[in-house]
Amino acid sequence: MTSVNLAIVGVGLVGKAFVRQLQALNTDITFNVIFLARSSGAIYNKDFSPLPIDKLLELADNLPASDLAKNPSSLASLLSAVAPAILVDNTSDEVLAKAYPEFLAKGISIATPNKKGFSSDYSLWTDIFANATKGKSLVYHEATVGAGLPVISTVKDLIITGDKIRKIEGIFSGTLSYIFNEFGSDSSAKFSSIVTIAKEKGFTEPDPRDDLNGMDVARKLTILGRLAGLKIDSPSAFPIKSLIPAPLEIEGITADDFMTRLPDYDSDMDALRADAAKDGKVLRYVGKVEIDSSSETTDISKAVSVGIEVYPASHPFAALQGADNVVAIYTERYGNLPLIVQGAGAGADVTAMGVLADAIKVAQRIAK
Amino acid sequence: MTSVNLAIVGVGLVGKAFVRQLQALNTDITFNVIFLARSSGAIYNKDFSPLPIDKLLELADNLPASDLAKNPSSLASLLSAVAPAILVDNTSDEVLAKAYPEFLAKGISIATPNKKGFSSDYSLWTDIFANATKGKSLVYHEATVGAGLPVISTVKDLIITGDKIRKIEGIFSGTLSYIFNEFGSDSSAKFSSIVTIAKEKGFTEPDPRDDLNGMDVARKLTILGRLAGLKIDSPSAFPIKSLIPAPLEIEGITADDFMTRLPDYDSDMDALRADAAKDGKVLRYVGKVEIDSSSETTDISKAVSVGIEVYPASHPFAALQGADNVVAIYTERYGNLPLIVQGAGAGADVTAMGVLADAIKVAQRIAK
Repeated sequence: MTSVNLAIVGVGLVGKAFVRQLQALNTDITFNVIFLARSSGAIYNKDFSPLPIDKLLELADNLPASDLAKNPSSLASLLSAVAPAILVDNTSDEVLAKAYPEFLAKGISIATPNKKGFSSDYSLWTDIFANATKGKSLVYHEATVGAGLPVISTVKDLIITGDKIRKIEGIFSGTLSYIFNEFGSDSSAKFSSIVTIAKEKGFTEPDPRDDLNGMDVARKLTILGRLAGLKIDSPSAFPIKSLIPAPLEIEGITADDFMTRLPDYDSDMDALRADAAKDGKVLRYVGKVEIDSSSETTDISKAVSVGIEVYPASHPFAALQGADNVVAIYTERYGNLPLIVQGAGAGADVTAMGVLADAIKVAQRIAK
Repeated sequence: MTSVNLAIVGVGLVGKAFVRQLQALNTDITFNVIFLARSSGAIYNKDFSPLPIDKLLELADNLPASDLAKNPSSLASLLSAVAPAILVDNTSDEVLAKAYPEFLAKGISIATPNKKGFSSDYSLWTDIFANATKGKSLVYHEATVGAGLPVISTVKDLIITGDKIRKIEGIFSGTLSYIFNEFGSDSSAKFSSIVTIAKEKGFTEPDPRDDLNGMDVARKLTILGRLAGLKIDSPSAFPIKSLIPAPLEIEGITADDFMTRLPDYDSDMDALRADAAKDGKVLRYVGKVEIDSSSETTDISKAVSVGIEVYPASHPFAALQGADNVVAIYTERYGNLPLIVQGAGAGADVTAMGVLADAIKVAQRIAK
C-alpha cells in the first residue's frame, strides 16, 4: 500500500466535488489530505498528519483564518516538508499559479483545472515545465481544457509519439456552446434573451461578460497552441472576437446595466444569423489553432483565433447539443478526418473528475 | 536520465510502425530494445545489452530462427533477468496472451494492441490484473479498442474516479464503418460490391469473413463491458449478428468462393436498407453494452450486443465518414449527453501510437 500527501487549495464548487470524489475513492494508493485551504483560511496539523477525510467538507466551511493561500511562497516552503506531495489547486487564482515553479522546484507536484499558470506569460509556462522536469515533481492539467474530457492528454500523447498537430478547432466554452446552440435552433430567439436565460440557469459566470468576452476560450487556445509547439506570448497575441457589443465595452457599467442594455444590439446578431442561414449554415463560437509546418516562423496573430464561425448543418459542430464542448484534432497521422472528443466541458463533477484522475496519475508516478 | 528495457514481439505492419516511432522518439526516458522476435525468429544479446536501435527494421526482416515467441513460458523466464521491463506484444497471438499473467508475475510489464488477453476467458482477464497488481508490473492496452483513440484510458479514468458507466455504444470496426458508410450513402450500391472494394483497398482482413463475422467487434465489447464491471465469460456470452449469410457459414468454403457467392444475398441487405430509409434512417454496425445499476445481477446476453442498428440522419453515428470509429460513453456524471470519442480506429501508425504512448506511461511508472 503506497500513500501520497495532498494539499488542497480551493474549496468552491469544484473543490468540494473533488473532496467528495476523493472520499469515495477506492484505489491501491492512499491519499492523505494534509492541508486544506481557501483564500481566507487554512487548516493543517503541525506534524502534517492527515486531516480526517470524512470531515473535510465540514472543515472546508469552517477554516481557521489564514493568509497562507495568498502567500504561495510561504505555502511552498511549508509544504516542502512533506514532499513528494501533490498540490491540488482548485482555484482560478493567478497569484498561486505564478508560484507553480516554486512548488515544483521544492518537490511538490501539481494537479489543477486552473488555467492561469498555462495561459498567462509564456515565461511562466516554460518555467513551470522546466521546474517539473528538474525536481521529480510533475504537473498535470487535463481539466484546464474541456474539464474531464481527454483533450490535453490526447494532444500530449500524439505529440510525444511523434505525430504532428496540423489544426485544433473546437467549441471550448460550455456557456457559449449553450448560447449558440439555442440561438441557432430557433430563428426568432433573441441573443440577449438567451444570455438572460443562461444566466438564470447558472450557466454563465455571475457577470456574463466574463463568458462573452471570449477570454476563457482564448486561454484554452493558448494552452493547446503551446502544447502543439507554438510560442504564444499570451492570449492577447491573437484576435479574440468579443461578444460584448463595442458600445458596452466601457468602464464602470455594472453587470445588471449590461444585461439591460444588451437587447439594443440584438439586431447585429440577428443579421449574422440570417446571413449564415441563407447558405443553410449556423453560427458557432469557435477557437482555432492552425500550424503550418512548412513555415519556420509562425505568425501567431494568424495561426490562432477565437470568434464566430459558420458551419453547414451536416458539420458535427452544428449538431452539438446542450452545453457540450467539442474538439477536433487534425494531425499528420490521422489525415483528413480529425480525432474528435466531445461532451460536457464544464460542471463541478466532471471538472473534479479530471483533476482527481490527474492526481491519481501523478501519485502512480511519485508514490513511494 | 532513466532507462527501461523493451522486448518487442511481432514485427508486422503495427510492429514496424512501432519501431519507426520508437526510433524517432525524443523523451527523457531511454528505451533499450533488448529482444526482438516474430513467430519464426528472435534476436537478443546474451548479456541483454541493447540492440542497435537504428538497425531494428533490418534485423526484423532477418531474425535468426527461434521458437521463443511460440513458447511464452520460456520467454517469460528469459526476460525475468531484465525485469523491470516491458513486453510490447504487437501480435494477435492468443498463446502469447495467455502467458501475460506469467510475464507480469515475473516483473515484466505489458503494452499491447492484442485483444486476445482481454477478451478470451474471464479467468484470463482476472489473472492478468491480479498479477499486474502483485508484481509491480503494469498492463496497458489502449490500442485494443479504437487503436490510438483515448477510449480505454477514458473509461478507466471515469470508473476510478467513481463515475458509473450506464451505456457504451459505438462503431468499433474501421472495416465495417467504411462498408456501412458507403452502403448507406448510395442507395444503388450493392453490399457485396462494397465488400469487394474494401478488400481491394486493403481495408479488410485477407479473408473478409474475419471482419464480417463481427468477432473483432465482439472482442472489443467484451473488453469495454468488463472494464465497466460486467463479468462477461467470453465473446460468445452475448448475441453477435454475423454479416456472413447463413447459407455461406459452411466449412471448407474459401475466401474467394465466399466473395463469388456473396452477391446472391445482396437483396437481404437491400431490404434492410430500404426499410431504414423509409423512416429516414441509415444502417450501422454497432456494439452496445448497457448496465442496469438497479439490478444486482446482469443478464450478459441482454446487456451486450453486436449487430446492425438504425440511426436517424441527425445522429452522430449517421454522419460518420471514411473508416472512422466512434464511441459514445454514457455515465452518471455526464448525464443524457454522452462523452464521445471519434476518429480513425485502425491503421498501423495510429495503432502503434497507442502502444507507444502506453509504453511511455508504463516506463514513467516503472523506470528507475
